[in-house]
Amino acid sequence: MKVYLAGPDVFLPDAKRIGQLKQDICRQHGLEGLFPVDGSPPGDVGEPLSRRIFRANTALMDQADVIIANLTPFRGPSADAGTVYELGYMLGKGDRLCLGYSNSPRSYIDKVRDRMKIHADGSTFRDPDKLEVENFDLPDNLMIVHGLELAGHPLVVPTEAVADPLHDLSAFEACVRIAAQHTRG
Amino acid sequence: MKVYLAGPDVFLPDAKRIGQLKQDICRQHGLEGLFPVDGSPPGDVGEPLSRRIFRANTALMDQADVIIANLTPFRGPSADAGTVYELGYMLGKGDRLCLGYSNSPRSYIDKVRDRMKIHADGSTFRDPDKLEVENFDLPDNLMIVHGLELAGHPLVVPTEAVADPLHDLSAFEACVRIAAQHTRG
Repeated sequence: MKVYLAGPDVFLPDAKRIGQLKQDICRQHGLEGLFPVDGSPPGDVGEPLSRRIFRANTALMDQADVIIANLTPFRGPSADAGTVYELGYMLGKGDRLCLGYSNSPRSYIDKVRDRMKIHADGSTFRDPDKLEVENFDLPDNLMIVHGLELAGHPLVVPTEAVADPLHDLSAFEACVRIAAQHTRG
Repeated sequence: MKVYLAGPDVFLPDAKRIGQLKQDICRQHGLEGLFPVDGSPPGDVGEPLSRRIFRANTALMDQADVIIANLTPFRGPSADAGTVYELGYMLGKGDRLCLGYSNSPRSYIDKVRDRMKIHADGSTFRDPDKLEVENFDLPDNLMIVHGLELAGHPLVVPTEAVADPLHDLSAFEACVRIAAQHTRG
């Protein structure tokens, strides 16, 4: 079973090392991990690099049976936009096993509050631009959280606080275990 | 033809008014606009509100022929996570017309730079957490931008700078015109 390893891990300084660790964990559970492309994707070198990366990642998703999305907050209160796109894409296909984890399970509104002032407007909370802040005691936008849940497997969070949310792989490994059970099932 | 009106418009103080304006524009072009649910979705009231909203929005997407996603930056340099999820979901289905617009077409790296210090690390740019900042002269994550482009219709941006990016509907109307051409085509 092929697992697409979606996440902002590709943006880490040690992306290559993390990709290899994730692939090792997959292999230990009898799965093949596909790590997103950066650097030098295949394709016509006359085509813009960003488009070649898109094509390569989409080809990896199209051949994958599973996505494990790292939804740990990225440069803000929400998950990385590219990863959210990829999770939606795999859920939209309707026949893939969709799993996700976040190493920062606090509620979305608390993570917004870390970054800006929010104020009450009746029973609604709003940011300085008067945009409503979702207040459902969920770790991210409700579409992401319930998309995973209703596809069969709720967002996985670490069982205890982690020291390094950008690198910790305990919740990732829990997702791999769920995927491996599907292979055997 | 039914058009799902994805976007953070639902979080505006005048969400209802914007939703009606968008539906009016759709109607003028012979289309039916489906505005995402907030407030009081149908469903079992014993079920959490957030999950009822998810179910209602997913049902609207499943019946829509088209998505027009408002990808204007939301509370950060990227589009709203819920909207990105929905765009990915509709693209993943493979048979829907997928359109999107952004009222803030500046490059992603410039929008990150507005919010935090970034530094050069060889030919790569990194934020204070050492996370790479995409530098492709694209307005958002490459998966979103090329996902739209390679599905047939590049991200629509306003022809001139807009005074109120959260409310301006000129790029939205350009998307509606593209959708209307498909009906006739």
